[in-house]
Amino acid sequence: MRAVQGRNPMTAEGRYVAETSFHVRYAETDAMGIVHHASYVVYLEEGRSTYARQRGHSYAEFEATGHALAVTEVHARYLHAARYDQRLTVRCWLAEIRSRTLTFEYEIVDDAGLVLVSARTQHICIDTQGKVCTLPETWRSWANS
Amino acid sequence: MRAVQGRNPMTAEGRYVAETSFHVRYAETDAMGIVHHASYVVYLEEGRSTYARQRGHSYAEFEATGHALAVTEVHARYLHAARYDQRLTVRCWLAEIRSRTLTFEYEIVDDAGLVLVSARTQHICIDTQGKVCTLPETWRSWANS
Amino acid sequence: MRAVQGRNPMTAEGRYVAETSFHVRYAETDAMGIVHHASYVVYLEEGRSTYARQRGHSYAEFEATGHALAVTEVHARYLHAARYDQRLTVRCWLAEIRSRTLTFEYEIVDDAGLVLVSARTQHICIDTQGKVCTLPETWRSWANS
Amino acid sequence: MRAVQGRNPMTAEGRYVAETSFHVRYAETDAMGIVHHASYVVYLEEGRSTYARQRGHSYAEFEATGHALAVTEVHARYLHAARYDQRLTVRCWLAEIRSRTLTFEYEIVDDAGLVLVSARTQHICIDTQGKVCTLPETWRSWANS
Repeated sequence: MRAVQGRNPMTAEGRYVAETSFHVRYAETDAMGIVHHASYVVYLEEGRSTYARQRGHSYAEFEATGHALAVTEVHARYLHAARYDQRLTVRCWLAEIRSRTLTFEYEIVDDAGLVLVSARTQHICIDTQGKVCTLPETWRSWANS
Repeated sequence: MRAVQGRNPMTAEGRYVAETSFHVRYAETDAMGIVHHASYVVYLEEGRSTYARQRGHSYAEFEATGHALAVTEVHARYLHAARYDQRLTVRCWLAEIRSRTLTFEYEIVDDAGLVLVSARTQHICIDTQGKVCTLPETWRSWANS
Repeated sequence: MRAVQGRNPMTAEGRYVAETSFHVRYAETDAMGIVHHASYVVYLEEGRSTYARQRGHSYAEFEATGHALAVTEVHARYLHAARYDQRLTVRCWLAEIRSRTLTFEYEIVDDAGLVLVSARTQHICIDTQGKVCTLPETWRSWANS
Repeated sequence: MRAVQGRNPMTAEGRYVAETSFHVRYAETDAMGIVHHASYVVYLEEGRSTYARQRGHSYAEFEATGHALAVTEVHARYLHAARYDQRLTVRCWLAEIRSRTLTFEYEIVDDAGLVLVSARTQHICIDTQGKVCTLPETWRSWANS
């Protein structure tokens, strides 16, 4: 799983990469003085949100059409710690898209470009009854770029 | 607002007091080394959950009947800090109940009984369309004890 | 407490108002489909962070000098709900500053300027031993604007 | 990574398994009506906390001796959703312990024993300066059971 190791800058090659930047909030730190590891899982999600928003079909719109993306897997590697007030950027790209599933990959970097966390998340498309269903065509078209 | 000051142990007098105990989770602390102030707002909610559960009609059941309790006000006073692994108890009682609104009061105490936080929250009953509606009779009967 | 009621736009008059805008994250919503009330407490904190950053002395710098601002009180009124993906703005201003305490006031508004939440928080300055101490002069000078 | 798949009940065989039970808090749910996937990462941590507490050396005590366990990897698989008020149990065991690193494995189950989430986390022991160091002997002795 190369992307997760964050050692291969080629993984995102030729793919659309959405970038989201923000300051670390105090509530996201813990008694160790650094950002709590679960906070990054929320950052990843915000990276996906930005990705969908930038591609022209927000996740809010996705839900409005009766779909939901359930998270089936999260795999994150923590390389360096971040602290309160630091400005971070989540880089998110679509690693794989199938008829009913999606895989996103991510790097969370600091202002100097150092990779703090690399991650991969997998998702399955479900309908309002929780049944697995096909991804909308608009989302599937993202596979081509 | 005496109850919020936590200086008057009489506030809960004659009322049903629900107690919920748990250990502080590491994720609930912040870089100051203590429990983050927003974490207590979640503790209060868990206090209300326990209250409803102990009175025989859980909040999950409340929602299943098409109602929801929207929070309209939170007022919390922070007197002493708590730390990771510490065992806390939320004491929650119904301060006031009207046809469509509820007021809960709380004390969060440590194992020695020291009041760390005192708080009051107000709520309004809404239906699935978000319209204000009357509280179910089962909940209103709690006013009598 | 007029500012909390959000009915008096004069409260911030003549004061420096810091504005922080962001999208609601999915993790900040709850099963009611709206932003969880504790999430706003974190938004308020981010409003204070921006305030300090914009005034030229970030809270990170404040801590680096051996001080901390403990939260002694939070009072929030919830007027309208927000949802995932919505863009919110926290408006934060200094309501009062004394030698050892600070009071901030806030309005959280949507893109149309509708006030969703109004709030007030109180803080006390402590040193690394947790002893109450005097606010640094740089922060106290904010009182004049 | 069999343990993560939660298909092999043998993984914990012969190992000490710590169990932590609690009700899902409302704040831990999201607009999809289910527990947010980042909340489980916090549940895992509480599972580790209980593990250490039950083995006789709490993580608070670990930190008091100048050590910290930094999270280097989280891998979670989400099999079934949980909802507000549901009672969950985290089962946590030590999968591997070396001189400076630890691997914990987990299953989060509902009251019927259905595995909702299976996970693995990796940690490295650091000192107060953030330097990698050797795990205390008391923790390393856990390897034998």
